[in-house]
Amino acid sequence: MSKKKYVYMFYEGNKDMRELLGGKGANLAEMTNLGLPVPPGFTVTTEACTRYYEEGEKIADEIVEEIFEKLAELEKITGKKFGDPSNPLLVSVRSGARVSMPGMMDTILNLGINDEVVEGLAKLTNNERFAYDSYRRFIQMFSDVVMGIEKNKFEKILDEVKEKYGAKYDTDLTAEHLKEVVVKYKDLYKAEKGEDFPQDPKVQLLEAVKAVFRSWNNPRAIVYRRLNEIPHDWGTAVNVQMMAYGNMGNDSGTGVAFTRNPATGEKELYGEFLMNAQGEDVVAGIRTPQPISALKETMPEVYQQLADIAKKLETYYKDMQDMEFTIERGKLYMLQTRNGKRTAQAALKIAVDMVEEGLITKEEAMLKVDPKQLDTLLHPTFEPDALKAAKPIAKGLPASPGAATGKIYFTAEEAKAAVERGEKKVILVRTETSPEDIEGMVAAQGILTSRGGMTSHAAVVARGMGKCCVAGCGDITINEEEKYFTTPDGKVYREGDWISLDGSTGYVYAGELPTKEPELTGYFATFMQWADEIRKLKVRANADTPRDAAQARKFGAEGIGLCRTEHMFFEEDRIPAMREMIVARTEDQRRKALEKLLPMQRGDFEALFREMKGYPVTIRLLDPPLHEFLPKEDDAIRELAAQMGITFEELKAIVQGLHELNPMLGHRGCRLAVTYPEIAEMQTRAIIEAAINVKNEGIDVVPEIMVPLVGELKELKYIKDIIVKTAEKVMEEKGVKIEYKVGTMIEVPRAALTADEIAKEAEFFSFGTNDLTQMTFGFSRDDIGKFLNDYFEKKIFETDPFARLDEKGVGKLIKMAAELGRATRPDIKLGICGEHGGDPSSIEFCHNVGLDYVSCSPFRVPIARLAAAQAQVKSKMKAFIDK
Amino acid sequence: MSKKKYVYMFYEGNKDMRELLGGKGANLAEMTNLGLPVPPGFTVTTEACTRYYEEGEKIADEIVEEIFEKLAELEKITGKKFGDPSNPLLVSVRSGARVSMPGMMDTILNLGINDEVVEGLAKLTNNERFAYDSYRRFIQMFSDVVMGIEKNKFEKILDEVKEKYGAKYDTDLTAEHLKEVVVKYKDLYKAEKGEDFPQDPKVQLLEAVKAVFRSWNNPRAIVYRRLNEIPHDWGTAVNVQMMAYGNMGNDSGTGVAFTRNPATGEKELYGEFLMNAQGEDVVAGIRTPQPISALKETMPEVYQQLADIAKKLETYYKDMQDMEFTIERGKLYMLQTRNGKRTAQAALKIAVDMVEEGLITKEEAMLKVDPKQLDTLLHPTFEPDALKAAKPIAKGLPASPGAATGKIYFTAEEAKAAVERGEKKVILVRTETSPEDIEGMVAAQGILTSRGGMTSHAAVVARGMGKCCVAGCGDITINEEEKYFTTPDGKVYREGDWISLDGSTGYVYAGELPTKEPELTGYFATFMQWADEIRKLKVRANADTPRDAAQARKFGAEGIGLCRTEHMFFEEDRIPAMREMIVARTEDQRRKALEKLLPMQRGDFEALFREMKGYPVTIRLLDPPLHEFLPKEDDAIRELAAQMGITFEELKAIVQGLHELNPMLGHRGCRLAVTYPEIAEMQTRAIIEAAINVKNEGIDVVPEIMVPLVGELKELKYIKDIIVKTAEKVMEEKGVKIEYKVGTMIEVPRAALTADEIAKEAEFFSFGTNDLTQMTFGFSRDDIGKFLNDYFEKKIFETDPFARLDEKGVGKLIKMAAELGRATRPDIKLGICGEHGGDPSSIEFCHNVGLDYVSCSPFRVPIARLAAAQAQVKSKMKAFIDK
Repeated sequence: MSKKKYVYMFYEGNKDMRELLGGKGANLAEMTNLGLPVPPGFTVTTEACTRYYEEGEKIADEIVEEIFEKLAELEKITGKKFGDPSNPLLVSVRSGARVSMPGMMDTILNLGINDEVVEGLAKLTNNERFAYDSYRRFIQMFSDVVMGIEKNKFEKILDEVKEKYGAKYDTDLTAEHLKEVVVKYKDLYKAEKGEDFPQDPKVQLLEAVKAVFRSWNNPRAIVYRRLNEIPHDWGTAVNVQMMAYGNMGNDSGTGVAFTRNPATGEKELYGEFLMNAQGEDVVAGIRTPQPISALKETMPEVYQQLADIAKKLETYYKDMQDMEFTIERGKLYMLQTRNGKRTAQAALKIAVDMVEEGLITKEEAMLKVDPKQLDTLLHPTFEPDALKAAKPIAKGLPASPGAATGKIYFTAEEAKAAVERGEKKVILVRTETSPEDIEGMVAAQGILTSRGGMTSHAAVVARGMGKCCVAGCGDITINEEEKYFTTPDGKVYREGDWISLDGSTGYVYAGELPTKEPELTGYFATFMQWADEIRKLKVRANADTPRDAAQARKFGAEGIGLCRTEHMFFEEDRIPAMREMIVARTEDQRRKALEKLLPMQRGDFEALFREMKGYPVTIRLLDPPLHEFLPKEDDAIRELAAQMGITFEELKAIVQGLHELNPMLGHRGCRLAVTYPEIAEMQTRAIIEAAINVKNEGIDVVPEIMVPLVGELKELKYIKDIIVKTAEKVMEEKGVKIEYKVGTMIEVPRAALTADEIAKEAEFFSFGTNDLTQMTFGFSRDDIGKFLNDYFEKKIFETDPFARLDEKGVGKLIKMAAELGRATRPDIKLGICGEHGGDPSSIEFCHNVGLDYVSCSPFRVPIARLAAAQAQVKSKMKAFIDK
Repeated sequence: MSKKKYVYMFYEGNKDMRELLGGKGANLAEMTNLGLPVPPGFTVTTEACTRYYEEGEKIADEIVEEIFEKLAELEKITGKKFGDPSNPLLVSVRSGARVSMPGMMDTILNLGINDEVVEGLAKLTNNERFAYDSYRRFIQMFSDVVMGIEKNKFEKILDEVKEKYGAKYDTDLTAEHLKEVVVKYKDLYKAEKGEDFPQDPKVQLLEAVKAVFRSWNNPRAIVYRRLNEIPHDWGTAVNVQMMAYGNMGNDSGTGVAFTRNPATGEKELYGEFLMNAQGEDVVAGIRTPQPISALKETMPEVYQQLADIAKKLETYYKDMQDMEFTIERGKLYMLQTRNGKRTAQAALKIAVDMVEEGLITKEEAMLKVDPKQLDTLLHPTFEPDALKAAKPIAKGLPASPGAATGKIYFTAEEAKAAVERGEKKVILVRTETSPEDIEGMVAAQGILTSRGGMTSHAAVVARGMGKCCVAGCGDITINEEEKYFTTPDGKVYREGDWISLDGSTGYVYAGELPTKEPELTGYFATFMQWADEIRKLKVRANADTPRDAAQARKFGAEGIGLCRTEHMFFEEDRIPAMREMIVARTEDQRRKALEKLLPMQRGDFEALFREMKGYPVTIRLLDPPLHEFLPKEDDAIRELAAQMGITFEELKAIVQGLHELNPMLGHRGCRLAVTYPEIAEMQTRAIIEAAINVKNEGIDVVPEIMVPLVGELKELKYIKDIIVKTAEKVMEEKGVKIEYKVGTMIEVPRAALTADEIAKEAEFFSFGTNDLTQMTFGFSRDDIGKFLNDYFEKKIFETDPFARLDEKGVGKLIKMAAELGRATRPDIKLGICGEHGGDPSSIEFCHNVGLDYVSCSPFRVPIARLAAAQAQVKSKMKAFIDK
């Protein structure tokens, strides 16, 4: 066996080696091979990271050896020497996982510098300021990232020195000032760590590599991976690259550029840069950068070179690119390229444009938009009239589009806590955000920052989340400690006050502005039409009310996959009859109460059928345990008893009699209809009468009557007999025949296991994956919160099985049931109506298992349509590869 | 296709046609073929019954035709004619399912009689009294069974006539008296039904056949089938047979005989008979019958003939026979033979005797004892000293052995209700029992009747249930209406008073007598030793305490399959430390509390290991949700808070924080160890330290550490790592190495579905079928009571899935898990530790799936040993037949 290779020079890799070299490493290799100006370097593989963890957080000797071999080669290529003051090689050390995790991993620049090298560098470049600027940056980053000394301790020193010498920006500091900073930094290091700042560049390098490996498992990286469903065992690669210096003066700089506008999708070179700065300055939003167009004027050749490279890369990668570059004394260096994150609007426009430009096919276009992102397009914008009338209180950068309104909170923790205690709408206001703020950003409706640009952390992350963000809003002055901000007119906004953000314009408004439904036309319509042409899986909606049904149709639903009839019973005008039914002591009393409910149900179904205009409508019979319809507290019981004309004791006894220790596994679903067949009778009558009535209006509907929680064929048979008997009777009474289907939820494991039998009676299966997940795992959805975090922390789970379908266990049951069901009844209709019906990866699973449709909440319908199209494209691609 | 045959003459059938002809029909056919004196007749098949239900409770024309064809043949054979007054054929119409359902189905005698025939019969037999006795019996039976007129209305008339003429018994009534009874009976019929009593014998016959079919689905038959796990779709056959008259005078009679004593197993002709009576009189216990030995004196030839037939039948059927016979004017007729029900003691003695007689093999002997019956041998008898000191208050027949003590109730409903509201021990006291009383008999500890013999309904059913019964206790006078009975000394015993019954002697005692453990020697020991030789499946016990373990060993357990460690924590001296652990706010506090629990757990395990003397012991880590260890009511919380030195509010908050909506699916099982690994650490330490300590005493134990509620490989891996690390550490500390295994419960469906993965870490699987059944069906064991009866009534379920393993669903998962587990780890140890581990049919399933052992509660161990032997015999038989 030949020795395993753990370190690759850039020229040894290529873009397809992403698993081994990480995304950054693979693309640096590819750009190198394309002949682009990439500073040379090498990549330590993700396998080295995995091995580091396997061996108890140690880098194996053979890997250390290989790193130094490659370092020697790098010295040869660059002609510089690591640690040699006369011609020092400095490097950047950067993480790079298989998929981009912006801001989540750690980077160290200017590594290799020390007390001697800094002097040599100053002499060599004849730029003492640059040398000490690099050294102070390195000390701070190394101390923070590798040694865990808080960053703000260094920032405080820098601010003190700036104040002392009246410097506004860090660029105003001279070499002498920076020397003072370096001394103070080293003192701080010694005070914190009890030893001198490490002077040996090789020690610096190995410590930095280890820090990158460690950073794979820092809490914010773990949270990011969980949110983005990235496996914990992938590990990260480490890229070691010769430094290109953006801080060598005003002919130097660093920036970020996109081949198209990531906010709008416009085809233009887009981005921003900072002169005399290093990479972190741009991303962290320390100074507000200049737009890339400004470069056209100051350095036209560099601009043109960058534009040419951008075009080349986009054509090559067939996707919008997000590039990092550095200009060192007028020379352009490419430091990174990757497929750029973009807003949903931009993603749609770019995908459609690229098809029209002939760059990609419609199928390829499908994969350019993340289905989850579509969500942002479906949520409200501000009412135009209200917006016109409103006067902005401040303006920032339109960092992530959409409209958001909510109560303001000044820390991520408080924003999160507010939502957890029931606040519906929250805006997170921060000077600037950092990866530690991720969870608060998830919780908030929108994010407002006073510093940072369009590529600042807040902006990038908000766009990725499809969340409204106004960034770099210098108009406001934030006092994070005392929890308020002021606007130029001196008004004060405190924690809990309402504001509204327009992420598309950057305007901030006081109070709560009314919002408006989005338009689903233009690029959206074109793109979704392609998705509909491509996908095989049908998409229905879960809708209980005509309003939901209308919304669902608007979003393109092709029917209702789940109408929960009980939701109708909870309404104020109906619940009295429902309660009368529950309290009934005889079948007669129960039938009387049901008679009151009949016209209401019939009316609901008529309205639903009208709204769905002939599309299929699946109606589920009463499902929840009856105690859900009764109050639990004595006072409420007393009040209700008085209303119902029975004694408190009677009603209390009924409530107690209905109490269950595990209601999720109790008297609910079809078990209710077994005990009280008259409920199923009434509901069937309402459905069939409604269908006949709308048929008489000219709408042909084939209602699908769905029996919930079936676990045994005879159970379904018993209820189906009631349904069929009732339906026949109604049709005879009315003298009108209609078609209807009777089917069942598959949500109890036993139903899946005996699906061949159940299919004898069921004309369709609808997988109720919420309950199926509960019972297959033995997890109560209501109680899992108590321990799910432990499962994430201990890396037992990577995703929440209630959010993403568990393919190994629950999926196995679904697959088995689909196969068994089809064996008995080849034309059985198969669908899914749990929460997973709107989750892209679960939809891909449904496609692969061969279901006929997914059903999800109306707002997820477009997501499902795209996910279904993607599943089709992917399975075609897979079939092609397999061939 | 040749026409299907629905009616068979007796001579056309044989004993192997039980499925088609029912047990009674098949045996009547066989006896006919054996040349025994069987009145001729024919059988309408079970398929006719099934078809009757399929066609909406109608007998198809072709079947009616076939019945009358066979009736014509019967007329030819007997030389009598149906409905012909000059030489009338009267028949009995009796039900007969595949398996014997004593007293559950309906019988009609003397059918074919009417106003004219009765006169002809009187003339022909020269016995007017006999003719009218037969007529009045027929009217009553037909009216009751076929037309649903209450029996007691007829009995009241009979009693009035008896009183009027000063007759003590019905045999004291003359022909004239009986004529009067017949007139009154017919008047009653007309008053009830608005029409005359049907005179057409053919109408009588068809109505009677329909009534038998209908009776298959009467509530008491349904209950009996459920209790005895007889499928509802089998249907019953109908036997139509020429009447033999036991009521023709004092040279006539009817009786029941057993080839061996069904109470003791003694090899002797056993039974009883009534002179001048018909069959129902004996079974219903209307007059107290004479012992069969009396027949020896009064009719020695008949006795000898009966004894010869008995011997022939027993040798032929290779089993103890229960026969019905009628003597008509000195001539013996056999009306039925079947394998006789017997007490557990009798069953064992008969099985062992028959092997020793060379009649059957040891393997065949295994099938002669119902494993469930063994239960009666394992339960207490009265303490001999207490029994000696006690003075009986009454004496009846020792109808079913065992000792019972309880509060008395006078109706089945009240007995049942008392148990349902929490009474632990109840005695049902009735004048005589009837099939309507089944459920009350199930609920009671014992049954006391004042009328009826050893073959009365009460006695037969109690023996079948293995329940103590004292029958025909004429010493007591029962007032059922006012709910008391009096003893000869005038003492009154009222509802709720305690009495004690000795079913082996027939004595009744006042108050609650102390009981004593049974001896497991003699026939029991011999038989069980044979079972152990034959079976392949090992039998372990579920035992949490040394006392349980000792009991289990006594009953023959070969190890402990489930030790529930939490049961140890509930004990009074331990629960404070457990609560301290739960209330701990830091890992440190928790570890301190766990340190207090460690020596207690270690001590428990040492005691268990010593008791099991090297047999394997499977110890399950902490399983229940933590809130089970804390009080729920405010008062108790306040008290505990004071004891623990924390505030009420603190403790209340902890209790509330632990509250779960569905605790069965909540934070329990291995999920506790994921959150609090230190609990698993402490338990592992206790187990390994205990094993080392007993090893030092010379007992080699291989503890099996079992992780509960695993659903995912990584979950098991996480906890196994803790166990292994702790175990290694303990062994290093002690300097002693021991063997131990780590395995898991398979009780979550997902564990079964992914058993191939789980087996990578699990060295054994133990199927926790209680939870697996809960989750596979989605039934909460605690709540199923609310609707299970509806499922029985509506024939959706035939058995309780928590009592008998559901092979189709839960069994499929077990089979799948066993196969997947063995595929990954061929030597994986497989067992079951749910309640089903003690259920014979479930044990057969376990044998067939190839598990290594079953584990059940100590009292079920002998049952499991026998069931395992039976499973082996049956599978050998099946293999033989398949070959």
